[in-house]
Amino acid sequence: MSAPVLSSLVNHQVRLASRPVGMPTRENWHFTTEAVAEPEDGGVLLQTLALSLDPAMRGWMNEGRSYIPPVAIDEVMRAGGVGRVIASKSPQFAVGDTVSAGFGVQQYLRLAPGEFKRNGIFKIDLRMGSLTQWLNVLGMPGMTGYFGLMDVGQPQAGETVVVSGAAGAVGQTVGQMAKIKGCRVVGIAGGQAKCDWVVQELGFDACIDYKAGPSAVREGLKAHCPKGVDIYFDNVGGEILDTVLARINRKARIVICGAISQYNATTAVAGPKNYLSLLVNRARMEGIVVFDYADRYHLAIAEMASYLKDGRMKSKEDVVQGLEHFPEALLKLFNGENFGKLVLEVAPT
Amino acid sequence: MSAPVLSSLVNHQVRLASRPVGMPTRENWHFTTEAVAEPEDGGVLLQTLALSLDPAMRGWMNEGRSYIPPVAIDEVMRAGGVGRVIASKSPQFAVGDTVSAGFGVQQYLRLAPGEFKRNGIFKIDLRMGSLTQWLNVLGMPGMTGYFGLMDVGQPQAGETVVVSGAAGAVGQTVGQMAKIKGCRVVGIAGGQAKCDWVVQELGFDACIDYKAGPSAVREGLKAHCPKGVDIYFDNVGGEILDTVLARINRKARIVICGAISQYNATTAVAGPKNYLSLLVNRARMEGIVVFDYADRYHLAIAEMASYLKDGRMKSKEDVVQGLEHFPEALLKLFNGENFGKLVLEVAPT
Repeated sequence: MSAPVLSSLVNHQVRLASRPVGMPTRENWHFTTEAVAEPEDGGVLLQTLALSLDPAMRGWMNEGRSYIPPVAIDEVMRAGGVGRVIASKSPQFAVGDTVSAGFGVQQYLRLAPGEFKRNGIFKIDLRMGSLTQWLNVLGMPGMTGYFGLMDVGQPQAGETVVVSGAAGAVGQTVGQMAKIKGCRVVGIAGGQAKCDWVVQELGFDACIDYKAGPSAVREGLKAHCPKGVDIYFDNVGGEILDTVLARINRKARIVICGAISQYNATTAVAGPKNYLSLLVNRARMEGIVVFDYADRYHLAIAEMASYLKDGRMKSKEDVVQGLEHFPEALLKLFNGENFGKLVLEVAPT
Repeated sequence: MSAPVLSSLVNHQVRLASRPVGMPTRENWHFTTEAVAEPEDGGVLLQTLALSLDPAMRGWMNEGRSYIPPVAIDEVMRAGGVGRVIASKSPQFAVGDTVSAGFGVQQYLRLAPGEFKRNGIFKIDLRMGSLTQWLNVLGMPGMTGYFGLMDVGQPQAGETVVVSGAAGAVGQTVGQMAKIKGCRVVGIAGGQAKCDWVVQELGFDACIDYKAGPSAVREGLKAHCPKGVDIYFDNVGGEILDTVLARINRKARIVICGAISQYNATTAVAGPKNYLSLLVNRARMEGIVVFDYADRYHLAIAEMASYLKDGRMKSKEDVVQGLEHFPEALLKLFNGENFGKLVLEVAPT
């Protein structure tokens, strides 16, 4: 490939303008441009190809203590992604290499060698999975689902695993991994199309459409989990968490991965009223943050790439095109409109 | 001792008359008498000396699924206790033996040999601890505190342990065991007298009087847990649980033993609004039911009896006299009026 004329490139960026109250709006963002510069000695210049849009982004927009610092006002919005090395003064990366990195919501990223480690940049192999699969099952959501299920949930063959956000990025991985481990798997998702897909395409044993009515989850759990719930992998929080807590078995494990129903709440988060079910059932509720497992990502990636190859694992991505559509694209997560892992395609791949 | 004339004995009993809504009242109980009969072949007749009054009793009065079945209407109220064998046709027990058993709130208990196991009767050794200590640190509350802390909490020397209901039966054991294991221990209790006692007598590092003001717990945790909270042993639930959740460390363990603040609630239980702190901190919240550890009670009893003997562990019991005072005595638990393990003395000891 011919080297691009760097001086002709303009980096379009999306920055956090203000902290949202409730659902983010276009006013919470501002769009900037910057000139693109040569990498410094030992550094690289990357072009963003696709970005991962994740529920966790909503949390990064808030002020205050969390598992990572918030995005600062006027900072480029944090986002993981996949892209290409377009200029390199690093012996580790060659022009044309495909990489996963913390790109941010922008078209280009210039990294000094001292930033590699903190950024988390690494080369990806497109023979193991497609570019968008590297944002999905082989990316952060896949790692979250894998380690949340395997390390925190500790599934045993024959157990019943329930996962909310079943058609989402994390949910896909959790449900398929649980099937591979010999569990009965019941998904919870919004809408019949998602439910049909996780059952027919991903092989879940059943899926409950939580939008089907006010008692849909309660009735669905009763029908589809005749032996109770051993593991609940929770991506949503709120009422669904409470409903599942009422049906857990002794020594059940509740993996707290997210609470998307609560992220835009302008009142206090709804705590699980049925938490005393943990006492009655000697059960455990435990949080997972994927970064804790970074030293084992390569093992999970290798395992899941083998499942992608032999067809035991499938993936679905919902791709929105164009950096300028970032604000609206993000909202699809909170409206439940995305069908599969939400990806923002920033450049044609 | 001379054998009592059994036919002259009358068994006074307290039975559940109706299920309370909110705080139990005298109307929820009725008082009955029964003749006392000879034990059947292989059986025993026991005289109740003292009964354990516990927060869990409130739960047993409710209808519905829990870790044990509810007490039925008109049934003698369930209660563990200590007493004496006054007639025996069993080779396992001799007249005069002191035993721990599921006496129920009554003066006498006749057990058939086929009931021994389910009842849980066993001989106790008053050289290991006094009669009331066998209801406290060597009894169910002690076992609950011991296994909840050691098995679920898994304390490491140098960690900070917070325990609510610190002057109560379970709290005493938890705090003193945690000190013995080299932890920093901060209690939460109601009133300065209880706080002074756990610090001065039991050797807690600090104790927070939750009644001292609306921000007493928050400020107290800030002052007394400068390195955050590694283990929270929760006996109370409600707002205190939420306040502690806001100060937990990474990989913290929240032991859910009870939620006395919620037991008499007539509205829905308040769920912990700050439960997402479990996610941020990769922390775990887990329930404990003491019965699961029955096969190891003897080990914990032996260990704690040695601490009682060498003075590393102390105990305090709050003794109310007279079976007829059971209804009011029980309420002391929910008003926080008991100071130490609440015991109902049924016969002079």
